[in-house]
This record gives sequence, C-alpha cells and structure tokens, in this order.
Amino acid sequence: MSYKVAVLAGDGIGPEVMAEARKVLVEVEQRFGLDITYSEYDVGGAAIDNYGCPLPEATLRGCEQADAILFGSVGGPKWQHLPPDSQPERGALLPLRGHFELFCNLRPARLHDGLESLSPLRADISSQGFDVVCVRELTGGIYFGKPKGRQGEGETEEAFDTMRYSRREIRRIAKIAFETARLRKQKVTSIDKANVLACSVLWREVVEEVAKDYPDVTLEHMYIDNATMQLLRRPFDFDVVLCSNLFGDILSDEIAMLTGSMGLLSSASINGSGFGLYEPAGGSAPDIAGKGIANPVAQILSAALMLRYSLKQEDAACAIERAVGKALAEGFLTGELLPAAQRDQAKTTKQMGDFIANAI
Amino acid sequence: MSYKVAVLAGDGIGPEVMAEARKVLVEVEQRFGLDITYSEYDVGGAAIDNYGCPLPEATLRGCEQADAILFGSVGGPKWQHLPPDSQPERGALLPLRGHFELFCNLRPARLHDGLESLSPLRADISSQGFDVVCVRELTGGIYFGKPKGRQGEGETEEAFDTMRYSRREIRRIAKIAFETARLRKQKVTSIDKANVLACSVLWREVVEEVAKDYPDVTLEHMYIDNATMQLLRRPFDFDVVLCSNLFGDILSDEIAMLTGSMGLLSSASINGSGFGLYEPAGGSAPDIAGKGIANPVAQILSAALMLRYSLKQEDAACAIERAVGKALAEGFLTGELLPAAQRDQAKTTKQMGDFIANAI
Ligand SMILES: CC(C)[C@H](C(=O)O)[C@@H](O)C(=O)O
Ligand SMILES: CC(C)[C@H](C(=O)O)[C@@H](O)C(=O)O
Repeated sequence: MSYKVAVLAGDGIGPEVMAEARKVLVEVEQRFGLDITYSEYDVGGAAIDNYGCPLPEATLRGCEQADAILFGSVGGPKWQHLPPDSQPERGALLPLRGHFELFCNLRPARLHDGLESLSPLRADISSQGFDVVCVRELTGGIYFGKPKGRQGEGETEEAFDTMRYSRREIRRIAKIAFETARLRKQKVTSIDKANVLACSVLWREVVEEVAKDYPDVTLEHMYIDNATMQLLRRPFDFDVVLCSNLFGDILSDEIAMLTGSMGLLSSASINGSGFGLYEPAGGSAPDIAGKGIANPVAQILSAALMLRYSLKQEDAACAIERAVGKALAEGFLTGELLPAAQRDQAKTTKQMGDFIANAI
Repeated sequence: MSYKVAVLAGDGIGPEVMAEARKVLVEVEQRFGLDITYSEYDVGGAAIDNYGCPLPEATLRGCEQADAILFGSVGGPKWQHLPPDSQPERGALLPLRGHFELFCNLRPARLHDGLESLSPLRADISSQGFDVVCVRELTGGIYFGKPKGRQGEGETEEAFDTMRYSRREIRRIAKIAFETARLRKQKVTSIDKANVLACSVLWREVVEEVAKDYPDVTLEHMYIDNATMQLLRRPFDFDVVLCSNLFGDILSDEIAMLTGSMGLLSSASINGSGFGLYEPAGGSAPDIAGKGIANPVAQILSAALMLRYSLKQEDAACAIERAVGKALAEGFLTGELLPAAQRDQAKTTKQMGDFIANAI
C-alpha cells in the first residue's frame, strides 16, 4: 500500500504544525504498514516570494502526481496589499478547488468533553454539547459563476457576480450530505434562501428529490438568516448542515467559532475520484507563527481525514483521532485552550505532536 | 403638524402588537401636538385570504398616499405551501422595498441593562454589553439583480441569480453608515467578501472613497465569514455594521439573536425622501398569536423610528424610547424575557402597551 502525498505547508504557523502532522504520520505508517511518499511544494505567500504567484505551475503539477494534498495555511499581512486575485488565500485555494473539482467540503465541528467552556455560548447551551458536520458545495455557486466583472463608468459603473447551480451539482453534494447523515444522527438541515434566490428554489427541489432515496434520514430546510440564529440557540439540534458554497463559507465559520477551539478543526475538500485537499479550519495565524505555541491538532486531524477519504485507510484515520482524543481527555493542551490561570501548563506545538505520535 | 400613516398590521401577532403601538402613538400625538391620520390596509396572509395576493393594489395605493408605513409582520403556516413569489413575506416586503426604493435598512440591536443574561453568549462576553446598528442596503444586490431564473433541461438545468451593485448604490448606503457612526461611537465595520466577489471589490473601493469625507470615523473591512465569528467573540467591538443586501440579511439576524430579546428589536427601511417602512425585527410568531402574550415593544419602537426618520419628530421618538426604557428598567416584561421561575410575573401584551402609553 503505497501512496503519494503533496505537502503544501504554506505560511504562518503552516510549517510548524505540518511538521507535527508528519511526525504523527510516520508512526501511523509504521503501525499500519503504509508507504507514503511526501513531496513538498511552495504555496501562498511563500510561493509569491519565491515564484511571484501563490500557486506556481510546479506546485500544481506536483499535486497532480499525488493521491492527496496535505495543506497547511496561507496568507499574512505581508501579502495583504496585493490585488484579491493574487493574494495567497484566494490565489491558491480557489484555483486548487477548481482545478481538481473538489466539489465537496466537509467541516466537522464539535464540542469536546471538558472543553465546553471554550464555546462563546452560554453555559446552559454549551453544556448540552454539539456535534455538527457542515457539508459545503465548493466548486459552484457565486464563487465560480460567470459572468463576473465590471461594466460602465462613473457613478453608474457596476460590478456583478453570478450565482449559478445545476441540478447535477446540487444532487452530487446533497447525496454526500445524506450519506454522511446516515452514519451519524440521520438528520440533514439544508440551508438556502428560497424566498429570494432562484438558485435556492432549485436547490430545495433537488434536495427533496435526493431525500426520497434516504427515507431513514430526516430533512429540514432552513433559511440562511434563520440558521445563523438557530445555531446560537440550539446548536445541539443540528447534525449535518448542507450548504451551497457561499452559505457554507459563512455558516461553517460561525459553527467553528461556536466550538471556541478553532485549533482543533480540520476540513476535507474532495472530488468524485477520492482525491482531496486536507487543511486546518483556522488560518495562518501570523501573530503566533514561529513561536512554537500553535496548536497542531487541526493539522494532525486533517491528516486523519486524508487517510480516511483519499487513502481509504479508515483504521489509520481512527488511530490518529483516538490519539488526539487521548491528549484532549488528559488535558494535554496548547495555551489557547486553557483558562488564563492555567496557561503555565500549556504544551508547545512540539510537545503536542510528540504526545499524539507516541499515542498512536 | 399633520401626517398620514399607512398601517399594515399583517398576520400572526401583528394586529395585537400594532394595537399597543397605536395606543402609545395616541399619547404621543397629544403630548407633542401631532395630528396623525391612520389608514389600515391588508397585507401578507390576511391579504391573500381577502384579495388573493399578499400586496393588493389598494394597499400599495394607500401606502403611496401616506408619509410612512407602520408594518406589523406577515406569514404563517397557512400560506407556506404557496410558491415563493406568492408567499406573504416575499410577496409583500420585497415589492414594497422595491416600489418605494427603500434602499436603507437600519437595524439597531443592543443588550439592555439587566437583560444581558438573555443573550445566548457566555456571561463574561454578554456582561460587557453591546450596541450595534446594522446598516443594510435593501434594494440592490442579489435580491433584485437581473438576470434571475432558470434554463436548460434534465440534469444540466440550472438556476441563476445576479448580484449587482453600482457605485451610486454603494455610495448612498455607505454615506448613511458614516453619518450614523458619527452620532455614535465613530466606527464603521464594512462587511464584504472581496476575496471572492467582484461586487465586494467595488464595494470596498467606494466605501474607502466615502470614508475620506469622514476622517473622524474609523473604518474597518471584514469578510462576512470572519464577521460571523468576531460577533460571537467580541460583539462589543462593533458599532455600525455596513452590509450589502444579502450579507445584511444574514448578519442582522445573527446580531438580533445575540441580544436574546428579539421582541425588543425594531427596524427602519427608508428611501431618499424620508419615506419609510417601520417594522419589528421578529416574525409573525403564529405559535403565540391571539394569546395576548406577545411583546409589543418592537412594534412600539418601530413607531418611534417612524417618528424620527419619516415624521422628523425627534422629541416624540425619544419620548417613546424613554418610556420603553422605563418599563424595562422596572422589570416590567413579557414572559419570554423572564427566567422560567419568574414567568408568573409576566405582563401581557396589553399591560405592556398600557404601561408605556402611561409613561409618555
Ligand atoms: C480564502 C477564501 C477564498 C475561502 C473561501 O471563501 O472559501 C475561505 O474563507 C474558506 O472558507 O476556505
Ligand atoms: C422575508 C425576506 C424576504 C426578508 C429578507 O430576506 O430581506 C427578511 O428575511 C428580512 O430580513 O426582512
């Protein structure tokens, strides 16, 4: 069982947390008899500095040779003055998603036992816990719809973007949401704005059609504006949240923040052939980069998702998740997860990686 | 000083809470020597039942004769099976906004002293309070952009919506945000998705231009996804939140829910000539309609906004706001604002209206 992984560590804390994920993968390879070859490529700001663009041809070609992309994080103040298209985040992530047709973005988010108090929610709400997966369509909608641009002059000059969805695009992501729900709490909440958007009316129609094949799964529709509210009041009532590209961008971040522990959240962006890009949900955190205090867990869990979805090594994925669970259960935590009074017990990036690697 | 107001009470709790707002307005008229003539018209579900459409011609003509529209709320399960265009909310609100070019939507939201614990946020966050106004563009963007529709057949059938903004549209709403900030904490947070949307890039450009005329006001830009997160962590850092139509729909509801007291929130939708539509932020709450327990404060505060923005009666507006403040400060509250253990002290819709009317 041999695999090729393209490693795109990127900027900020990316390289530090990636080093820990690699450490954990070494243990996993040994224990499960896997043979993974890693090739490192520049991406984001690092690639802008070295090649003048956030996603160099060599990086793209390298990813094409691989079975999966393990992605760190990109961006930072140094490149913020650049025009949007050339910035690290947009200039690297969107072309990668488009090029590999990574239409399915999975963002799991839950409150871990003992970490409920990190949630910005009131104790009586967070104490009930929650465990949600956001299933976000990632290669359609207003992100990629054409036409997009500007026309006219002076005060009548206008900009325009097109939100566009086909039945096929909606159906394939909806199916994944229902399949996911089947393995969880059998509930799909489909987010739309069907009282305003033509795309949402079609979205609702197709999701209803797909639902017929999953009589064991409960489907509810919710307007995006209402969803931002209900998630605050009763996050525990959600299981799988199915979203279009833009609504998923917005809601998955709200849900991530509700956990209060962004450093624990990973995400998978996959295509129809099982190829995928795996990355932490948090950003490049330039403010703490290089200090050795960043939480590597999200990156390590991204490696677990890679093992599960692209390399089809479920046991190895579970081993990583169990090892992470052990660290959290034993209160082995980086500083941002600890109350101010206990910060002196904070573990470093490296200590976290070592602990989890040992626990494999 | 005589004025004409079109009263569109609508569905659900609309008529009950409107009756209390009218009661308060009678007192205000007397005290400030105003002469307001009210004309009532059907709207929403009530209009569908009586006229077959949610915004009958007679209602629209009546609103045209008036200086302002005092709006209750529309919608309910009875009309939910109708196609989106014919439903009460969409079929009444969107045409009214479009017809009168009500491009500016103001949604104030704050945590009232003593009511912090209603917020779904953690006590250490909510105890710091917050006071935000969402300034939402209401007649442009993806709500009204053309083309909007469907084409093709079978699995390639697709739906499309167009997000569209002109410099002029962005400039006029941005100006209002800066004017509003000037009278408050001198800070504007402009929400966009400039890393993806052409409309947002233009939005940012024009907002920057407008900002030059307000050197006393601090401007920050924030991506919509990040904004949903920061509002949870530090709502107290926001003052005026400037949004396009869709982003404002989403964020203003998140902000409303953060107060935990939707029954206190009103909103104003105004055009360039001072004409406006004033409505509570909450919905028609069909589950509690007719029980006499709905909170009339949002409707009463909508009347205050009407006095301020359309009738230019600032003193009268303040008198209402003070009277409401008195009720809240004295713990004179409807049931949904009270802890379960104190529900027996809950005031009825009518008692709230009477108290506030008396306090004028
Ligand atoms: C960087 C940006 C283009 C991207 C998005 O909007 O999808 C990011 O916010 C995300 O959610 O991965
Ligand atoms: C009813 C609906 C069309 C409307 C909107 O989306 O604007 C509502 O959600 C609002 O915010 O007033």
